[in-house]
Amino acid sequence: MSVWDGHMGWLGALDAGITDRDMTTEEIARAEAESCFGKDGVVLEKDGSLGEGYRILAEGNAWRVRGGKTGLLYGVYRLVRHRLAGEKLPEGDERPQYGLRMIDCWDNMDGTVERGYSGRSIWFEGGRLTYRPERIRMLGRLLASVGVNCLCINNVNVHEPAQGLIDEMLPDLKAMAGLLRPYGVRLMVSVDFAMPMRCGMSTADPLDEEVAAWWKDRAEKVYAAVPDLAGFLVKADSEHRPGPFTYGRTHADGANMLARALRPFGGTLVWRAFVYNCMQDWRDTRTDRPKAAYETYQPLDGQFDDNVILQVKHGPFDFQVREPLSPLLLSMEHTHLAVEFQLAQEYTGHQIDLYYMPPMWDEVFSAMGKDRPVAIAAVSNLGRDDCWTGDPLALANLFAYGRYAWDPMCGAEETARIFIRMTWGFEKGDEDILARALMGSRGIYEKYCAPLGICWMVSPNGHYGPSPDGYEYQLWGTYHRADRDAVGIDRTSSGTGYLDQYPEEFQRIYRDPEKCPDEYLLFFHRRRYDSVMRDGRTLIQRIYDDHFEGAALAEKMAEDVKKLPFPERDRGEICRRLDLQVKDAAEWRDVINTFFRRLSGAEDERGRKIWR
Amino acid sequence: MSVWDGHMGWLGALDAGITDRDMTTEEIARAEAESCFGKDGVVLEKDGSLGEGYRILAEGNAWRVRGGKTGLLYGVYRLVRHRLAGEKLPEGDERPQYGLRMIDCWDNMDGTVERGYSGRSIWFEGGRLTYRPERIRMLGRLLASVGVNCLCINNVNVHEPAQGLIDEMLPDLKAMAGLLRPYGVRLMVSVDFAMPMRCGMSTADPLDEEVAAWWKDRAEKVYAAVPDLAGFLVKADSEHRPGPFTYGRTHADGANMLARALRPFGGTLVWRAFVYNCMQDWRDTRTDRPKAAYETYQPLDGQFDDNVILQVKHGPFDFQVREPLSPLLLSMEHTHLAVEFQLAQEYTGHQIDLYYMPPMWDEVFSAMGKDRPVAIAAVSNLGRDDCWTGDPLALANLFAYGRYAWDPMCGAEETARIFIRMTWGFEKGDEDILARALMGSRGIYEKYCAPLGICWMVSPNGHYGPSPDGYEYQLWGTYHRADRDAVGIDRTSSGTGYLDQYPEEFQRIYRDPEKCPDEYLLFFHRRRYDSVMRDGRTLIQRIYDDHFEGAALAEKMAEDVKKLPFPERDRGEICRRLDLQVKDAAEWRDVINTFFRRLSGAEDERGRKIWR
Repeated sequence: MSVWDGHMGWLGALDAGITDRDMTTEEIARAEAESCFGKDGVVLEKDGSLGEGYRILAEGNAWRVRGGKTGLLYGVYRLVRHRLAGEKLPEGDERPQYGLRMIDCWDNMDGTVERGYSGRSIWFEGGRLTYRPERIRMLGRLLASVGVNCLCINNVNVHEPAQGLIDEMLPDLKAMAGLLRPYGVRLMVSVDFAMPMRCGMSTADPLDEEVAAWWKDRAEKVYAAVPDLAGFLVKADSEHRPGPFTYGRTHADGANMLARALRPFGGTLVWRAFVYNCMQDWRDTRTDRPKAAYETYQPLDGQFDDNVILQVKHGPFDFQVREPLSPLLLSMEHTHLAVEFQLAQEYTGHQIDLYYMPPMWDEVFSAMGKDRPVAIAAVSNLGRDDCWTGDPLALANLFAYGRYAWDPMCGAEETARIFIRMTWGFEKGDEDILARALMGSRGIYEKYCAPLGICWMVSPNGHYGPSPDGYEYQLWGTYHRADRDAVGIDRTSSGTGYLDQYPEEFQRIYRDPEKCPDEYLLFFHRRRYDSVMRDGRTLIQRIYDDHFEGAALAEKMAEDVKKLPFPERDRGEICRRLDLQVKDAAEWRDVINTFFRRLSGAEDERGRKIWR
Repeated sequence: MSVWDGHMGWLGALDAGITDRDMTTEEIARAEAESCFGKDGVVLEKDGSLGEGYRILAEGNAWRVRGGKTGLLYGVYRLVRHRLAGEKLPEGDERPQYGLRMIDCWDNMDGTVERGYSGRSIWFEGGRLTYRPERIRMLGRLLASVGVNCLCINNVNVHEPAQGLIDEMLPDLKAMAGLLRPYGVRLMVSVDFAMPMRCGMSTADPLDEEVAAWWKDRAEKVYAAVPDLAGFLVKADSEHRPGPFTYGRTHADGANMLARALRPFGGTLVWRAFVYNCMQDWRDTRTDRPKAAYETYQPLDGQFDDNVILQVKHGPFDFQVREPLSPLLLSMEHTHLAVEFQLAQEYTGHQIDLYYMPPMWDEVFSAMGKDRPVAIAAVSNLGRDDCWTGDPLALANLFAYGRYAWDPMCGAEETARIFIRMTWGFEKGDEDILARALMGSRGIYEKYCAPLGICWMVSPNGHYGPSPDGYEYQLWGTYHRADRDAVGIDRTSSGTGYLDQYPEEFQRIYRDPEKCPDEYLLFFHRRRYDSVMRDGRTLIQRIYDDHFEGAALAEKMAEDVKKLPFPERDRGEICRRLDLQVKDAAEWRDVINTFFRRLSGAEDERGRKIWR
């Protein structure tokens, strides 16, 4: 029996023993190939010119994989997916769309995971880096098998003692990097912009020469321990984090100073473009949080160094169930960008509610184009739970993320089907049922939570379950301003002017409330409850209908999925969560409908139960 | 210099050195008398027949205090208050109204204080009983000086390791009891009803003979260490605490079993009558939380043993700014009752907002009569902060509580004035200003928070600041059900029937919405915003007016109080809090007014600013 006795994710058909010991990348590739194709089923041929890429060639009854550094391994996994799940093979050379394909872990060194719904941290506990090596290797396999090549291991909110990861804990960082290196996964570390002050300096001013020298020296020490560290990730001047604003400097000043420290070692400085006023006065209707990132960063376009990547959340708010594309992603022509997703289901059901993300990503890439960013990042949904992601169905998002990071045009449904075949190997009928459930899941969740792009009707702090006014009189810039007549925010030029941040072709889509797609209606416009939607229904009736439908669809979906032949270890977790989702969807339905009924006074035209 | 260098509360005129060492009660009485009246100013004469009581006699230029056990000490403090603050002396013998005058501390052994706004616990830290002895003695003095005779030292929610207070930590309990004993303060301990199971038994069923025997044995051990322990306090079957309901037993079964264990040692079992469904469905309009205590306990009247005291909160909810008297306090003819107040300003401003409680207590005693309860309890507002209560002005509530526990008819304003003279010795004009501020403070707070008896429009969990819908879709049984037309709950017999729990003379006061006192209107009735109040204003206009007035009055009050000549150490804390109160009162005003304007659509008749 192998050392790794835990969940294999979607790699259950392979030999678990591969995680028992340290191996080189080529040894791993060979072993995975052998476990799937037998001893001589695959020939490996190294070709450095391919980089992370590969070419797969049929040679009689065997396969030849030609590949560069880690390309061999990626090629083997591609073959494995082809064999086990019928994934199509590429014609010619295959290379990833993005060179940097990151998972950002919000793991704290006390073992908690901020916004984590899969148990405690896999590698932190009690202020230390500590783990089972075979668990880390297994994680490396899972990531490599879908092409993820970077793991930022600590929370962007750098709490003590995580600063020590690039200081006294460097030997531990080095050891963990060594475990993941054969899988092509490089570590990244979130750093504290004010760290020089932790180390006795009187300032962290990015234009102070001693500060810059301090960071250069620090980088030298870090790279001596981990020569292939991907770089640093920084959240600065955001939600009370320190940053360049303290010193009257721009974010370009801050990012470039750090980037120059990393440059000699080939490191990348990833700078999170998540700045807004988290102390807004709710009475202030001129400030509009979605405008903040563009206002802060757009004027800096062209000022960032080459090895800086500005990491931008896909929407202008914060990973809500429905947001338009961030206008910042359309405007930074002369800046390297990463688009940031969130696999952790913070606002999308806590890995209790089923929420398959690729349909949302399809919208993002279709609006943005795949070539705008040079990198891609996603907040981790990983944890110490048996199946890695709490809900075994949430593994689908991790799997899909890797596939999208490699090829954003890979397709949501095909990805779902390959995941299902890899993970559970269902027969066609069952695969159809689960693929349908996954593909429909986001639409269902959207129907029963905050209506039509309004966002934020979620319980404060926890972010699970309905609280229609929970963010209404708060400091977070998150308002719907529902009154007895109308709801929503006018973000056109006659309102907050947020829409003006978009190119004209986007403005055309959203500007006119009569033409604006329904799902964005209340994001861009303030509408009366009795206003008539394009399909002839009033807004209030549409809200009621959506919520009744959403809860009913959740019930139907749960019923379908619970019948599927999952193995016991997954079945219990899946069914327990689906039952909770059904209950919680009904709660959403009732709270939201009652909230709007109390305001509007409108009855449901179809006479369904809305509580008083 | 004496060992005690901290705040002396209202005893600043006395000699701090009295806290330096262990003294007998009589030694303390003598030393306090001497420090105030000089060496031969007071003659002490022991008279056991007076118990806690005393008689004060003028003898030429000196005073004679005749008193029983602790009566001598109480008599001396009475004389001190007479000398320093002009408090009238009693004619003839003076005895306390209530034999048990408790402070219930919600201190946890990790050093936190549940709903504490005065810093960490004075005696718990890191899971142990640990303190500066002189601080405990100083506390004993403060309590003795106003006649408090019992301190329940741990949270009624008994969290590990507090169970150990009556087990492995008995030596520590004994030591602390020894420090307070000379001040006439007996300890009480909150116990965990399920404690036998912590100690290896398979049940905590109160009718199980082995359980009863276990508690008898436990009591014997406890009283061997602390022979004058006042008894045990229990919160059972409440907010997820264990209790007799687990075993299908009544609360009389549970309380009597414990009381019988305490009886041989003269101990009292205080049983908290705070049971309600804290998992209510907000859709359920038939269940009404204020009905719960009466429904649970009234049928048990007469079934409790003689040494059981049922501790009943003064209102049927939970220490809101405005509640009617709990009907349970009017109905338990054959049960020993304690009335419970809360000095900690959980729902009344966190010791930031000024909130002097005696005017509220006057209402309670005027409705209930002083002779119904046999005991009195108050949740502590004590903590490790310099001035004991966070806000130096909140000391007034601690002082007043002792005075009311001794004599509930002592008068709110006179109490305020004596407190002011004792503590700061202001001249008459300044005393008038502060007395007026204290006396008006509750009315001001009430005006700017939830309107007209509605309760609960407070931020969930924290309980500070406005959140109009914060408790609306929750499990706590706390609903206002405001919609676009009306607000409030009909609690008459045509509604939830809560009013039926009262004697007829109370029903007459509240039954008719046209006659119900304004301050209880929305507690007992559901009213349309356009309904006309007795003074001719509409309900919605009254809500607006109250909130504008409340915030304006808070501003005026702060301005007045900030001018007073407090000593520096108090001044900073007081002013900081008053500034916060002014800011937060404006926030209450705006949030509540906006909430009701969004619902009602009504404009303010006087054209003042209500945000949209």
